Amino acid sequence: FVLDPDPDAPCKDVSSKFFIGDITDFDTVYNFGQNVDVITIEIENVNADALEKLQQEGKQVFPQPDCIRMIQDKSKQKAFFRDHNFPTSDFIIINNKNEIAENIDFLPCFQKLSRAGYDGKGVVKIENSNDISKGFDTHSVLEKLVDIQKEIAILVARNIHGEVSVFDVVEMVFHKENNLLDYLMCPSGLPNEIMEEASSLAMAIINKMEMVGILAVEMFLTKDGKILVNELAPRPHNSGHHTINASFTSQYEQHLRAIFGLPLGSTKSIMPSAMINLLGETGYNGIAKYVGLEEILKIEGVFVHLYGKKFTKPHRKMGHVTILDENPLILRQKLNKVKDKIKVIATT
Amino acid sequence: FVLDPDPDAPCKDVSSKFFIGDITDFDTVYNFGQNVDVITIEIENVNADALEKLQQEGKQVFPQPDCIRMIQDKSKQKAFFRDHNFPTSDFIIINNKNEIAENIDFLPCFQKLSRAGYDGKGVVKIENSNDISKGFDTHSVLEKLVDIQKEIAILVARNIHGEVSVFDVVEMVFHKENNLLDYLMCPSGLPNEIMEEASSLAMAIINKMEMVGILAVEMFLTKDGKILVNELAPRPHNSGHHTINASFTSQYEQHLRAIFGLPLGSTKSIMPSAMINLLGETGYNGIAKYVGLEEILKIEGVFVHLYGKKFTKPHRKMGHVTILDENPLILRQKLNKVKDKIKVIATT
Repeated sequence: FVLDPDPDAPCKDVSSKFFIGDITDFDTVYNFGQNVDVITIEIENVNADALEKLQQEGKQVFPQPDCIRMIQDKSKQKAFFRDHNFPTSDFIIINNKNEIAENIDFLPCFQKLSRAGYDGKGVVKIENSNDISKGFDTHSVLEKLVDIQKEIAILVARNIHGEVSVFDVVEMVFHKENNLLDYLMCPSGLPNEIMEEASSLAMAIINKMEMVGILAVEMFLTKDGKILVNELAPRPHNSGHHTINASFTSQYEQHLRAIFGLPLGSTKSIMPSAMINLLGETGYNGIAKYVGLEEILKIEGVFVHLYGKKFTKPHRKMGHVTILDENPLILRQKLNKVKDKIKVIATT
Repeated sequence: FVLDPDPDAPCKDVSSKFFIGDITDFDTVYNFGQNVDVITIEIENVNADALEKLQQEGKQVFPQPDCIRMIQDKSKQKAFFRDHNFPTSDFIIINNKNEIAENIDFLPCFQKLSRAGYDGKGVVKIENSNDISKGFDTHSVLEKLVDIQKEIAILVARNIHGEVSVFDVVEMVFHKENNLLDYLMCPSGLPNEIMEEASSLAMAIINKMEMVGILAVEMFLTKDGKILVNELAPRPHNSGHHTINASFTSQYEQHLRAIFGLPLGSTKSIMPSAMINLLGETGYNGIAKYVGLEEILKIEGVFVHLYGKKFTKPHRKMGHVTILDENPLILRQKLNKVKDKIKVIATT
């Protein structure tokens, strides 16, 4: 049973029962929950109060509502990292724009909305006092700029028996323009000790939260070699799409194993992989058309995942492509070829 | 859009529109076909006349109705093999039981119904004149017994542009009791020249048929090293279930690529694999229960596919398990462990 606000959501054809409704509305979520025994989420921007009530009334809700609530609020996430000594960039939690001016010594920084930020939205860079007018006048986090060497992510799962398992660290490369993930590489190519540190950190975080389900932990590797936790996502995540084809267990299967109390599956990579997001090209709005599809389908180890969204718009996530190859150099060549060939435009 | 006679068919929750109806009935199939542009099948026991009419009226029907019709009738299949010099066991086509007695010199043999045989049903062994009374009194094929060393199968696909591609040869091991596939191994472990001969044969067959779609070719390797074609299935087949996890392209994706005119995908194996059918245990009828599931889910490289059928009965195909391992010895150990642990019984 799936609840989604979009009547044309891709999940509608692959669910036993499809409910259309606002997932941020208390009654909608609460009533939906009456139909099922176990409830999970695919996006954290959901009514956590309704989930908490369902949990109190005996439904199994994973990830647990308190975990969702903490992650929904960037200021709470940052406070959680600080309270438990998980390394993260320096920050100040503020209530309004005036408090930016009061912390002028803290600039340059990013200001991030405490709530409702998503995929690069709700973030503004405040370089100096001239930028304060661009700032948000609401509860938010000021985050010190970090000298980033690489952005990495790691998926970790914990089942209801407390078993924990991490996937391989991935390197994420973001679009400069839209701040969305452009592609990822797995393995990350980082030294083993860095990968082990990242894995230990991810396991420590999920254990401290006592969360059940899959958790994506996004991190920065700084230019001076330090790992800082950036943010968490308590659900299958863009940084794990490659696991569908490239790991013995996919992030989706791992999440289901975790919440159903099954043993967690092997997270070992079957082969080195890359994953590219298929984003709607700028300048195109309308019925989606995939240019170059036939060409990339000819390449061995290329797995095309289209989400079945009818309409494209600039930067909309329309699908992803996973690429497998034993040879990292050939993997990189295939990646470049796929990036070059496939475009999501609109029919005229 | 899917048409299936069973209101609880597993496909009902993974289709945009689900139609319940008799796939052997002309009107049902013809009317269903009006809703769609491209029609394919998942079982060959379907009304081919309706498909032919749909094809004549401009619908795309793959595999083509004449291919389905030939394969539906074992006597036509055997005649096709003979007419085109594809090696197959000696046979005689008969119309009734009396003709068994007329061919007493041909015994011992198997008698196979020309039509409606499936999964080992519709087959009887006629050793000598005493067995004639057990024979079918209808149109059928008498097939000479073959000294079988191994049973093998090969999947071959052909797209609408005539591009052809074969998967790796698999060895199939059948249950002695129920004649259903017990497990398969890929690669087969046969010498290269045998595998190449089998591949060439499969390609020659699909080319001669000019069939579009995926075709399973079951073959015997005789004790004196000859390959004989046993029978064809013009659809995704039990001998190809391992491809979901073990090949760069699954048999299902390959079939869709073929009928949509897309380039065929790489059929290379990602890793050696075994596949076990999960059959309902004898002695159990009722709501299915999977014993040993948690234990096998702990094994790396074990992929469990349950078909979501509510009821089990003896020998019913309830699912399958694919096992991957680089090391053939460990693969065999995992196979034995999975076979030993997992059982489909019924709740009391």
